[in-house]
Amino acid sequence: MTPAFEALQKELKRLPGVGFRSAERMAIHLLLEKPEAAKQLSDTLLSARERVRSCASCGNVCEEERCSICEDVQRGESFSLCVVEHVSDLMAIEKSGAYRGRYHVLHGKLSPINGVGPENLNLSGFESRVKEEGVKELILALPNDVEGEATCHYLTELVEGGDVEVSRIGFGLPSGASVLYADSGTLKSALDARQRY
Amino acid sequence: MTPAFEALQKELKRLPGVGFRSAERMAIHLLLEKPEAAKQLSDTLLSARERVRSCASCGNVCEEERCSICEDVQRGESFSLCVVEHVSDLMAIEKSGAYRGRYHVLHGKLSPINGVGPENLNLSGFESRVKEEGVKELILALPNDVEGEATCHYLTELVEGGDVEVSRIGFGLPSGASVLYADSGTLKSALDARQRY
Repeated sequence: MTPAFEALQKELKRLPGVGFRSAERMAIHLLLEKPEAAKQLSDTLLSARERVRSCASCGNVCEEERCSICEDVQRGESFSLCVVEHVSDLMAIEKSGAYRGRYHVLHGKLSPINGVGPENLNLSGFESRVKEEGVKELILALPNDVEGEATCHYLTELVEGGDVEVSRIGFGLPSGASVLYADSGTLKSALDARQRY
Repeated sequence: MTPAFEALQKELKRLPGVGFRSAERMAIHLLLEKPEAAKQLSDTLLSARERVRSCASCGNVCEEERCSICEDVQRGESFSLCVVEHVSDLMAIEKSGAYRGRYHVLHGKLSPINGVGPENLNLSGFESRVKEEGVKELILALPNDVEGEATCHYLTELVEGGDVEVSRIGFGLPSGASVLYADSGTLKSALDARQRY
């Protein structure tokens, strides 16, 4: 509606998962309905930007050199490393409480079609890390798609020859789901991943 | 994960339509994936906050005293005033191209249960505006719910005695919708609003 309003809407629309309408609603909220929230959001954003960085070991968010998970000695004692695409995947696994080892966040997945090669992923310290931390199991928690598959293949080749067992998380029917409402891709994954009962 | 990260996530979660997971994704995007976007969003936000204000006449967003719609003489010549709850409603109607008069944005609706009375709505200049602009038709484009109904009732009483025709937008089946998938409330509205064919 006005240049400054539209500039803010455009900037908000760049956030993941935010469309034209949501950005409009947010801009109205910040500029007309809760003007004090605009200042607070801006302050919090700049302060977080100043403090938060990527963990030097694993790529998780942290405010020190290494994140709390990497600093946790008990986590290292499992000698297992779980590779995820994004920090949000790490957070989701943490929330599930199903894993107590360390992580490695790639910040992406291999995608030649989008010009994402190994050099664009957080892989510079990966191999030395696997050796230094004496990783025994590498758990690939990457997406169930072509790029996820390609990334798994690449990582497996990277650690080949070492004493590392590589596994990939299971695919199939989500918890609580029925076959009736599952899409074809999920059903194919589930059938491919069938196990003796 | 870290205090500054959590503070930003909490602040983003306050935006309309943003849940815990979306706020997490946005925070990761702004702090790790696109750190330059954080600065830009903060700058745009502060600049927009500085420039954008509420139109003194209608409550729409603007950067001057009055918004471009209120300043448009042609808009005034229709002598019709469309009352909406939020600026986003105004924007949606503008986008439809179905109306070319002026607006009045209430920034809310009457809701005694939430403690929202007439004094909390943008109504201070409403009556004098209706008189001064010689409004002939007041179109109430308020929600199809109890609070919308109460607000329509209140506004109708406000302009009673004057030479103003009051109408309320139609309710019923949305464009392209079928009876089969409409909810009971919509079907009730549609039946109540039936017209001779």
